[in-house]
Formats: sequence, C-alpha cells, structure tokens
Amino acid sequence: MNAVPAEIKPEEATATATAARPRVVIVGGGFAGVAAARALRRADADVVLIDRRNHHIFQPLLYQVATAVLSPAEIAAPLRQLEAEQQNLRVLLAEVTGVSLADRTIEASLPRGGVRTVAFDYLVVATGMRPNYFGHDEFAPHAPALKTLGDAESIRAKILSAFEAAATVEDVAERARLMTFVLVGAGPTGVELAASLAQLARVTLRGNFRQIDPSRTRIVLIDAVDRVLPTFAEPLARGVASRLFKLGVEVRTGVKVEAVDEQGVVAGGVRIPSATVIWTAGVAASPLPKLLGGETDRAGRALVDPFLRVVGQPGVFVVGDAATVKQADGRPVPGVAQPAIQEGHYVGGLIANELKGEEARRPFRYFDRGNMAVVGKNYAILERGGVRMSGVLTWFVWAAIHILALPQLQNRLRVQRQWLWSYFTGQRASRLIPETPPASAAERS
Amino acid sequence: MNAVPAEIKPEEATATATAARPRVVIVGGGFAGVAAARALRRADADVVLIDRRNHHIFQPLLYQVATAVLSPAEIAAPLRQLEAEQQNLRVLLAEVTGVSLADRTIEASLPRGGVRTVAFDYLVVATGMRPNYFGHDEFAPHAPALKTLGDAESIRAKILSAFEAAATVEDVAERARLMTFVLVGAGPTGVELAASLAQLARVTLRGNFRQIDPSRTRIVLIDAVDRVLPTFAEPLARGVASRLFKLGVEVRTGVKVEAVDEQGVVAGGVRIPSATVIWTAGVAASPLPKLLGGETDRAGRALVDPFLRVVGQPGVFVVGDAATVKQADGRPVPGVAQPAIQEGHYVGGLIANELKGEEARRPFRYFDRGNMAVVGKNYAILERGGVRMSGVLTWFVWAAIHILALPQLQNRLRVQRQWLWSYFTGQRASRLIPETPPASAAERS
Repeated sequence: MNAVPAEIKPEEATATATAARPRVVIVGGGFAGVAAARALRRADADVVLIDRRNHHIFQPLLYQVATAVLSPAEIAAPLRQLEAEQQNLRVLLAEVTGVSLADRTIEASLPRGGVRTVAFDYLVVATGMRPNYFGHDEFAPHAPALKTLGDAESIRAKILSAFEAAATVEDVAERARLMTFVLVGAGPTGVELAASLAQLARVTLRGNFRQIDPSRTRIVLIDAVDRVLPTFAEPLARGVASRLFKLGVEVRTGVKVEAVDEQGVVAGGVRIPSATVIWTAGVAASPLPKLLGGETDRAGRALVDPFLRVVGQPGVFVVGDAATVKQADGRPVPGVAQPAIQEGHYVGGLIANELKGEEARRPFRYFDRGNMAVVGKNYAILERGGVRMSGVLTWFVWAAIHILALPQLQNRLRVQRQWLWSYFTGQRASRLIPETPPASAAERS
Repeated sequence: MNAVPAEIKPEEATATATAARPRVVIVGGGFAGVAAARALRRADADVVLIDRRNHHIFQPLLYQVATAVLSPAEIAAPLRQLEAEQQNLRVLLAEVTGVSLADRTIEASLPRGGVRTVAFDYLVVATGMRPNYFGHDEFAPHAPALKTLGDAESIRAKILSAFEAAATVEDVAERARLMTFVLVGAGPTGVELAASLAQLARVTLRGNFRQIDPSRTRIVLIDAVDRVLPTFAEPLARGVASRLFKLGVEVRTGVKVEAVDEQGVVAGGVRIPSATVIWTAGVAASPLPKLLGGETDRAGRALVDPFLRVVGQPGVFVVGDAATVKQADGRPVPGVAQPAIQEGHYVGGLIANELKGEEARRPFRYFDRGNMAVVGKNYAILERGGVRMSGVLTWFVWAAIHILALPQLQNRLRVQRQWLWSYFTGQRASRLIPETPPASAAERS
C-alpha cells in the first residue's frame, strides 16, 4: 500500500479557489458540520466537507454501542452519501493538520499518506471535542474515553471480556476486581452508561454464567462535583440519583479521582480495585481552533463573535463543541447536539446569504428545545425552561425524540426495533468480542 | 491487565472429571459444535463448549458483512447465551492448544493469559477450517481471506478505503489499480462476493463520488479450475457465469495465480494491478485434528469412521469441516453448513445414547437438502438431487431459507428488514471505515 506516491499532485479543482464559484470548506462531519453543509445546499458555492472518518455518528447513543444494545452501523450514516444528495458538495476523507490564514488554505493528510492543500473562501471549523484527563494523560491507557465508534467497540469488548475473565478465576479478590466497573464523570454520558451497564449485568447476562453471578456486578460512578448531572435542576438530579441507587449503582459525588492504574482507581483516598475504568469526565477542544489566530478558552474552544466568526479573520467560523458560545443570559450553550445543529445551520445560512450579497443576519441565538437524560429502562428526565418532567412517560418521550433524530430513516427503523426487542426481552443484540479485543491488543504492545 | 496470575488454579469442577456425571468437551462453536451441544441438552452429562470467540457466526452470509450489506451483530449470536438456555452446558472462552489422549485432557489458553486443563470423557472436535494459500503464505498479507467477523470488517474497510483513495489520486493508472478488485477462488464465496461487490460499486455508490465513477470499477474473479462453482451441475454454473458477465464481473477460470504482491496479482502470466485482492480459494483444517492420533487427509482433516469417531480413540469424535466424511456414493460431503449441522447433531445424539447405555446408532448418513448459491439481486441457483432451479424465484427461496436459518429470531427480523431495504433502495447500511482500518494497521506493523 506504500505504492501511492507521497506527493500527490493536488487536482486543480481542490487546490485553488480560482474557479468562479467561491469555496466553503467545512472541517468535521458531526452535527454542526453536517448542518452547515445542508444549509448551503442551494448556495452558489463549492462546498467541501472534510472528516477523517467516513461516517457521521449520532453521538447521544454512543453509550448504547458500548453496552451492546446497538450496533455501530445503527447510529452511523456514511458521509459519502451526502455527495449523492447534495449537488454542490464534495466529501474528502482526510485529517486537517494545518491552516494558513494568509494563503487561505488548509492542509489535510490523506489516510494512505500524502498531503492535500485545499484553498477556501469560507472556512467552517466544526471539529468537536476530545477527551480531557485534566493534566493526567497517564490515566488514558487505563481509563478509555467514549468519543468514537472505535472507542465504543473497544469498551464493549473490554466490558464483556471482564465478565468472561471473572468466570475463569478462582481468586475471590481478583474476581471482584474483574466484576467492578468504575465510571469517572457523572454527566449525561456517565449516568446513562452506568444505568445501561447495570441492566446488562443484572438482566441481559442473567443465567449466562454458571461460575459467577453477574447480578453481583459492582458499578461505581464518581464525580468531583457534588451531584450527578450538574447541568440539570437539582430535583431532577436527585430523582436520577435515587433511580441509580435502585439499579444498584454506587454514586460517589464530591470525590476526586487521584489515580488510575491497571489495578483500579484511587478516589478520595480510597482504592477501588477495578479491571474496567471508563472516562466520561472531561472534554477539550481538538487542536484546530487554536490555529485560527483568535482567542480560545481554557478547554481550547474558540471564543467567537455573536455571528460565530473568529474575530479578525473574515470568513472563518467555528461552530459546535469547538466554539464557546454564550446564550442570551450569558451562560454558555451546553455541549450537546441541539446547539451544534443550530450553530451549523446558522453559519451555513449566513454564508449562503453573504454569497447572495445580502446583509449579515441577526446574531446567533440558541433556542433551547430542552435537555434530556435517560436512566435505564422506564426512567428519563426532561428540562425545558421552567418545565421539568421525569419518569416512565418521559422515557417514552426520550425514546421517540431520539429515534426521530437519527440521521437516516433506515436507522430510525432499526433502532426502534432494537429497543422494542430489548425492552421486552432484556436481550442485547451486539454482544461481540472481536478475536483480538482492541483494548488488550493495545495493552500488549 | 497483567495482574491475572499466569498460573490460574483450575477449578475442581473444570479440571477433573471426578464428578459423577461424565463430561463432554466440545471444541468449536460453529454449526457442528453448537448442533452437538444442543443434541446433548437432555443428556445426563456436563457439557463444556470451548471457543476462542464469544459468538457463533452464520458463515454463509459473512460476505455480506464484507460488502457492507449487513452488520457483524446481524449474523452473530453470543455463545454465552447458550448457558442460560441449556442447564447442563458451560461455555469457556479459550483457545485449545493441546490434547493429551493418555490423560484424556485438553489444554486451553485463556484470553488474558494462563492455561486451563480440562478433562473429558467424550471429546468432540469441531474446529472448522482456516484459509489455505497452497504453500504460498507470502500471499496472505496482500490477499486476506474471509473466515471471521474480523476478516469481514477488515475487508469492508479495505474495499471502502480503496474507493476513497481512488477519489484523491490524479494518476490514471493508480486510480485504475485502486478501482480494481481481484477475487481468487470462484466457489460460492468468491461468486457471491463478486456479485455483491458489483452491486455495491454500480448501485449503492452511484453518485457518491464526484471525482470518480464507481460504476467503472473492475472486478476480476480468478480460479485455477476451468469453471465457476465446480460443486454445482454445469448448466447451473454456465447460468451463473453469464449472470456475472451481465453484472460486469470478469471471470477468468482455468487460470492459475502465480503471484500476489502489494501491486496486484499475476495470473496466467498476466499482471492485474489491484489494490484489493481477496482470497476465497482454499481451506485447510485447523491444527487440532492432527493432534488426535488418527489419520488426516492432505488438507489436515481427520479421517473418521462411519460413526465420526477417530479410529483407535474411543470417545473422540471429529465433526464439520474438521473431518472428511464420505457420502453413501463415496463422494465427500461438501464443506457447507448443512452437513456440519447434521454431523454435530448425530454425534451429540450418539453420545447421549451411549450415556443412557443404549447401543450405538446406525452410522452417520448425510441427507442432502440441496445446495444453493446467490448471484446479486434476483438470481440464485439451487440443486437438489436431480432438481435444478435458477433465476428470480430461486432467489426468493434462497432469501427465505437463509433468513429462517439464522440463529436467533431477532437476527431473522433484522436481516429480513435489511434485505428488503437494500432490495428497494440499493442502499447499504454498514458503510463504516474504522478510524484506523485493521488492514492498514496490520500493514504498518
């Protein structure tokens, strides 16, 4: 495969913006990037969407891949398909490694080697977040984060392998360590993962092991903040905590993680022996926003103006989790799907307007459609403005909204069927351990 | 993860067969092994099913995972679940590395390290086949075979990545090489894969690339034998060859592959530049049958007596692709699912009878339920005794039989839905390239 020449002659069309039509380069095929691309559908421009993955993923359900409820393809849609659906769009599978604001070009590494230079008239950066170990990168090998489909598959293999290993050891302490799962971070991902893991252990795996009792699995949810779900109103969070208690999840809030190693976790001075630690605690922006010349916050997110532009860089926008955007009341918009979609849509529309010679629109304003979290089967919470709901009805609303929000009709049908099946049987369809689990392969090397 | 002690004290229950109940150890969780386990459901014995994977796969549809029609989980069922369904069964995730016929024990390596010794009263070897490069193992890195779910996912990534790479190169010859797929072996897997790949390129990817025309993909199917599907009657094979021609597959039969390297294939003295070569040509037995003391054939399969026993080794059986079994007319039974299931079922029943003190049954006799192959959409062939069918009706029969044969009700529903969707839209749900494709990761190391 090294036959591809290292220096690939860039095609005229991608290398220079000499064509009559202006070029909009969008970096990142997540919620914000795809929304921006779609909003430019009718614009008189060449739109180039760059991502290092060939698929868009529906991030809010990633934890269900990690717990074997859903298959990777069920929450993914091929970005390539957008090229068939949108005449003025091209998709480039590459990783953006540099920006030259003087030349108005970006540099992208191709998966098989070689670098492509792409000129832009407008640049939309939608590169999202990556895990943040708060200065403790040494935790990373022992506490994988959940950001990509690959992460979800590794974590799934790690969880299922831990049960398999527990069934083969005699030593009581080692068996207990293998059956202890520690989740660091009690935000939505940590909470949803903990509940889903509890149901995997206590319902799905029931009777599956004659040597161990999976219902005795220990699940510990840790956060330095003093309660679960700090972005939700306190009464809702209290309901969630009591629901987690019923599911047998140990919630340890207000406790700092001091160490993570291959034997487990030390938190608040106490060692918790565990073979499986999952990190959902912190996120930081990808490196790209820092290269745009504007200011960034501590997490590396770009500080943008009310039009989501980088100050002093005309035609350069940052959207989604890569930007820090304020709401009308001064609070930052949350790092979830809705704001990302709205920001992408806004910037795409703004560029389309400019290309038509129209005046800049009103500044971006986040419309809060509400915030939800789910805790296992039959319990979810919803907060929207002053409205707060929780319980089984909210769970059905949660399920309906998430099915409708999936990026392809086929995925909606597949996920709906999967959930119905799981709901009534307790079974999970995707209990696959690859022959060489990614996690242990990494450990070996 | 190196905390697990290298020497794991084997549990009493697994290590010795001192318990009153005799122990049946089944190695391999494919069609034959699972059928043997099921047939022992009501036997007064401890059944231990050992496999290095935690899932049973429905091998006949593996090529559809490689061509992005189906997701891995849709053709897999967790073996672990059998433990909940069958009271006298235990599942052990391990790789069998040795047999002591004198001690009547097997040795199994656990995935996290450590070796487990398992005693048996009866041993059923159902370890199946692995790829065979006919003495040219140097082809293997450039021409992966399709035996496991991991293989199918790597091949899927390789195929999709080849199109992505083709869209980024300028050089016409290199682009053609990237858009050329060579399949070595024109048996059922090669034929079905070729047709499915042709439809991926010409229907699913239509309009997905503005820089290349995927319908101009070249697919070459090579075999040293002088026609496709040698196990089928000639008129049926001729029909398949003409169908492949219509789908734009170049069939080169009677041509030997002389070399495979990273630039492509040399076959019959002609070099075919190709970035993606897939090997479906030959199979050999796994190493285990050779360790059983009996005779093996050239492919390493055990020669068994008419009761599928290893001669001179009482209580040791070989079933499925690991054995070579003769039909009434002296021809070997084909290496497909039906004989494997029948052999496993037969041996399980035979052991159950022996345990009840009953006489040995009649010798194994293969009941031929027919042989099928599918060529893309709307065309399949069926041969059963003197009956031969081909065409669109046979295609519907093929689809119905394969859906009903899937190992879990849920998988039947999922695959049926997937196929209906694909049938009417031409879309494929599982077009995922992992961030680091397994194939290129292997090449790098």
